[in-house]
Amino acid sequence: MRIGVLTAGGDCPGLNAVIRSVVHRAMTGHGDEVIGFEDGFVGLLEGRLRPLDLNSVSGILARGGTILGSARLERDRLREAADNADELCAQYGLDVLIPIGGEGTLTAARMLSDAGMPVVGVPKTIDNDINGTDRTFGFDTAVTVATEAIDRLKTTAESHQRVMVVEVMGRHAGWIALEAGMASGAHGICVPERPFDPADLVAMIEERFARGKKFAVICVAEGAHPAKDTMDYGVGEIDKYGHERFTGIGTTLARELEARLGKEARPVILGHVQRGGVPTAYDRILANRFGWHAVEAAHKGAFGHMTALHGTRVTMVPLADAITHLKTVPEDRMDEAESVF
Amino acid sequence: MRIGVLTAGGDCPGLNAVIRSVVHRAMTGHGDEVIGFEDGFVGLLEGRLRPLDLNSVSGILARGGTILGSARLERDRLREAADNADELCAQYGLDVLIPIGGEGTLTAARMLSDAGMPVVGVPKTIDNDINGTDRTFGFDTAVTVATEAIDRLKTTAESHQRVMVVEVMGRHAGWIALEAGMASGAHGICVPERPFDPADLVAMIEERFARGKKFAVICVAEGAHPAKDTMDYGVGEIDKYGHERFTGIGTTLARELEARLGKEARPVILGHVQRGGVPTAYDRILANRFGWHAVEAAHKGAFGHMTALHGTRVTMVPLADAITHLKTVPEDRMDEAESVF
Amino acid sequence: MRIGVLTAGGDCPGLNAVIRSVVHRAMTGHGDEVIGFEDGFVGLLEGRLRPLDLNSVSGILARGGTILGSARLERDRLREAADNADELCAQYGLDVLIPIGGEGTLTAARMLSDAGMPVVGVPKTIDNDINGTDRTFGFDTAVTVATEAIDRLKTTAESHQRVMVVEVMGRHAGWIALEAGMASGAHGICVPERPFDPADLVAMIEERFARGKKFAVICVAEGAHPAKDTMDYGVGEIDKYGHERFTGIGTTLARELEARLGKEARPVILGHVQRGGVPTAYDRILANRFGWHAVEAAHKGAFGHMTALHGTRVTMVPLADAITHLKTVPEDRMDEAESVF
Amino acid sequence: MRIGVLTAGGDCPGLNAVIRSVVHRAMTGHGDEVIGFEDGFVGLLEGRLRPLDLNSVSGILARGGTILGSARLERDRLREAADNADELCAQYGLDVLIPIGGEGTLTAARMLSDAGMPVVGVPKTIDNDINGTDRTFGFDTAVTVATEAIDRLKTTAESHQRVMVVEVMGRHAGWIALEAGMASGAHGICVPERPFDPADLVAMIEERFARGKKFAVICVAEGAHPAKDTMDYGVGEIDKYGHERFTGIGTTLARELEARLGKEARPVILGHVQRGGVPTAYDRILANRFGWHAVEAAHKGAFGHMTALHGTRVTMVPLADAITHLKTVPEDRMDEAESVF
Repeated sequence: MRIGVLTAGGDCPGLNAVIRSVVHRAMTGHGDEVIGFEDGFVGLLEGRLRPLDLNSVSGILARGGTILGSARLERDRLREAADNADELCAQYGLDVLIPIGGEGTLTAARMLSDAGMPVVGVPKTIDNDINGTDRTFGFDTAVTVATEAIDRLKTTAESHQRVMVVEVMGRHAGWIALEAGMASGAHGICVPERPFDPADLVAMIEERFARGKKFAVICVAEGAHPAKDTMDYGVGEIDKYGHERFTGIGTTLARELEARLGKEARPVILGHVQRGGVPTAYDRILANRFGWHAVEAAHKGAFGHMTALHGTRVTMVPLADAITHLKTVPEDRMDEAESVF
Repeated sequence: MRIGVLTAGGDCPGLNAVIRSVVHRAMTGHGDEVIGFEDGFVGLLEGRLRPLDLNSVSGILARGGTILGSARLERDRLREAADNADELCAQYGLDVLIPIGGEGTLTAARMLSDAGMPVVGVPKTIDNDINGTDRTFGFDTAVTVATEAIDRLKTTAESHQRVMVVEVMGRHAGWIALEAGMASGAHGICVPERPFDPADLVAMIEERFARGKKFAVICVAEGAHPAKDTMDYGVGEIDKYGHERFTGIGTTLARELEARLGKEARPVILGHVQRGGVPTAYDRILANRFGWHAVEAAHKGAFGHMTALHGTRVTMVPLADAITHLKTVPEDRMDEAESVF
Repeated sequence: MRIGVLTAGGDCPGLNAVIRSVVHRAMTGHGDEVIGFEDGFVGLLEGRLRPLDLNSVSGILARGGTILGSARLERDRLREAADNADELCAQYGLDVLIPIGGEGTLTAARMLSDAGMPVVGVPKTIDNDINGTDRTFGFDTAVTVATEAIDRLKTTAESHQRVMVVEVMGRHAGWIALEAGMASGAHGICVPERPFDPADLVAMIEERFARGKKFAVICVAEGAHPAKDTMDYGVGEIDKYGHERFTGIGTTLARELEARLGKEARPVILGHVQRGGVPTAYDRILANRFGWHAVEAAHKGAFGHMTALHGTRVTMVPLADAITHLKTVPEDRMDEAESVF
Repeated sequence: MRIGVLTAGGDCPGLNAVIRSVVHRAMTGHGDEVIGFEDGFVGLLEGRLRPLDLNSVSGILARGGTILGSARLERDRLREAADNADELCAQYGLDVLIPIGGEGTLTAARMLSDAGMPVVGVPKTIDNDINGTDRTFGFDTAVTVATEAIDRLKTTAESHQRVMVVEVMGRHAGWIALEAGMASGAHGICVPERPFDPADLVAMIEERFARGKKFAVICVAEGAHPAKDTMDYGVGEIDKYGHERFTGIGTTLARELEARLGKEARPVILGHVQRGGVPTAYDRILANRFGWHAVEAAHKGAFGHMTALHGTRVTMVPLADAITHLKTVPEDRMDEAESVF
């Protein structure tokens, strides 16, 4: 078989581990050839590619980023790729394309698949919000980085008797906030799925100070927002999911809490450190397995599907299942965390 | 409700997180009282206990070890506890006992449960070999520690053109070896579930050297052993599962490889660093959830059960399911890893 | 002897290690008594103190924050303390006070010392800008945290072909930016000591892109600023050192570079994660030694001095030497780093 | 100038950072050419070399190991190199050779220098025992790795009420044991410089158990040994420094303590994890600076010297100063640590 692989969308720890795993399984397991397209679908359209062999992927397992590069493709050019699906396959002698990417990439993958290209997808998102799989690689690393940061911030908050508001990634789903908040023992967690009332946060903080715990750490997803009429928060933009989106919730919330509490409250925006660098052991393993199963799926002709984790098993699910809606945090997970507001 | 909690068996990152979570959920969710028995079942028998409240568990979420201590109880005294199950409950006013521990502890828990004590178990093992749950807390930390160690050893092996044999924990099941081996890209992995032939390792290493990769790292579970008649390995002891057990496989295998290859091969025994210290974010979250669900189960009267992870959900399974046999690494997981010998 | 100890000023990894070391050395080495004042000089004035013994400092060596708390004292109340130096010593039976703190704290320490109080200072600053000592504890941790963050950001910058501007701490001195920039291989470093010309950064980045390295990471101290007339930068505030101070250089510079380069440039503000949490091994050792020597100095009557690192030795220097001016980055250190603009 | 660089001796975190720094400074600072010899002096003799440019050293700053490889050279062949010093320089057009290595390498460097080869050395040892410099890169990483391991072991020792004996590297000097022991709060530290009496360790441990601290961690350098007639310890080998050397002190001491105390005592041998992998920020900076100054020294003709850290400055010292004797731990440093036995 001749297998094409590409990475698209934002950086995510584990991309290189998938590429390496695809090459290893394809070459040593099946005697396949593997080519890598540069900068995602852009390389596919522009004919920028390179052969990949064991040497090309030596030493990359634990390295952040992607050796193939990544770039966003405009919708029109993607349409063009779909219209020429057959020609593209013929041109490169492709028997299967394995795109590794997030929701946008998987949508593109499905478009190409519907147009007749043999495609096996590998889902990727640090936000853990792709449907159809229990978890995605990159998420554990993001949670780990955020947890270590909050661990550090807690000692400062405590020494200075201060409130800290830590904004973590998660525009549409609160997974990182939920899990980093639980792992670090944040006193309050705010997620997009459950609009919060700042009055409840204020009450919780005051109760803490009253019983001698003179600090608090709030972990807030970037997509979290106050419930209607609970706080003056301006007007957001309407995003592609039809939700009103706001930016700067960390800073805004810190300011609001400071004003209401009459105590120092500081925002910390973790930002891009959550999405790059060396993957955790967990993410490396999941990425390894996804790469291995993508190759197996290709050999079984399971096109139009993507790899997914279900319990302890990696299975294949239709790409369609992944992109119909986002996987958000369910109510029972919020309840378990105790501190989701 | 009046809830007793204890930790028994070996150290495991996440024990304190469970204790804290039990106290938090019991007190703030249900207004329960919580008492902690010291040194496992020993404290239960000897009346060494202390009340636990929010202050007692403040700051322990990320701390290794157990604030309650842990000790092994001889079988006879356990029998004695079972015979006096009712009296013990009456003596302490216990409505439920939540023992946190491994296979031995859960067996004891079942014995007490059968004797009429209301018990909800929380499984714990860094080895991940308890049946009935996808994963246990402590395992991710062990894999992470082993992976970081092998990451470091690889650069030395490469600089010195040397073979390194890293022995990790896992007497009866190869989970840590499998996952740390995959995560760190070990060139060979040996697990108890699949006796290895040293000749295969030798062939793999020679093939590597032949194509210019003049080093190799082998990750071997402490319970791994050679296949019959493949290597002079002495006679082991018969363990309680009826398996022949050997010690010192890391050192023995390094010596064997050195002799067969005529190249330097060094053993590294990771040992106890794998089972202590700060839990990873993953383990803290799982421990948190197990503690929360144990309290809920107690309130629902789900006695004789233990918490378990199934996919993304925490559920309750009968203690009996956990202790009938060990959860070993299945064939398909070994196949995925590619390098299991 | 009866020794008082307090921590004042901002959080700094290693404070607890000093407190522990003071207690250990005083009690086991000299049979002294130790009392800890809460919330810095505030506790001294308000009589909030507690006896410290081996148990009080058990387990705190590696813990971030300060078990004694920390708070800022207004100048007037400090004056009051100095005016009552003798009474305060008599009131608490103090033979020596060991304040652990930064420049402000050491200035206060000197004021009390001049007023007759027996004082031995321990310098503390993550910024490394206290004069009279080669290094201070907390600095290595801050550099380590910033380095690990930039390590992660580099892979994202590279995958996305993007410029990243990372703002680290350092208002008056560029030590953290210099060392974290060197350690992480940042392509540009901006420090307060050498005003930069954005045109030079632009030229460097364009040269990189021209030779195929399509990303760049700039590490900028929060106190760094452009040279006069090189960039529209508004008007800053005049700080207590008579320097014009600006805020938000990270964000401003990213915007400026994006406009000049026509390429995506993103700011990341690391913020408080640099100043809290578990100290590095280096910082724990230095903190340990400072505590030990402070007690020895007290017994030798070296009042009015503070502990200092000179080469491999810990020595005592007059408090006056520490507070006359800041220790800024000298020219030759910037030259060594190659990438300081 | 045409600069040759090579790495010799054992692995050490920071080697790649020095190579990169030499190339950067030489090429961008002076327009020099740089060639790298493979596998240390072996490559020099056998003509195995490759040109190094900015691309060859891209991305290696934080990587463990050495891209040039390392191998030990027999004394005879070294003699041969010295005898042909001029021819070697002529053959490769070498203006200067920069060998990066430990005591053996620096001795070789001096031999070559005495034979007329222009040589600038860069000292390297994780043991920190090279004379003439305050510290060497690699040491901080080794201490950090050992400290993190002991941090983990302490929680297990405490939970299990057990004695742990951790053997760290350091055959001739106890720097790693001293600093890792201080940083992790080990209760006993044993170094080669001060033969210990096991009876003192026993007394300390019993005193701890007596006051309720029912565990202890002993950090022992691999070269530490009991004082004469204090413990049956067999007969060691006489090493090249004329000292009697023993192996397996960690295991032997654990066994001895277990026998004397009647309590469980377990050895942990950290081994090679201390000498490989990603360097700490501290080591990367020192390695960077050493590389930079080696090139400057070459341009100033400071041959026969090596880079050295003195306080905050990097200076040049004669190679002769480095190799006359080892830098061992002085008495006052042991006193500071309190727990050196």
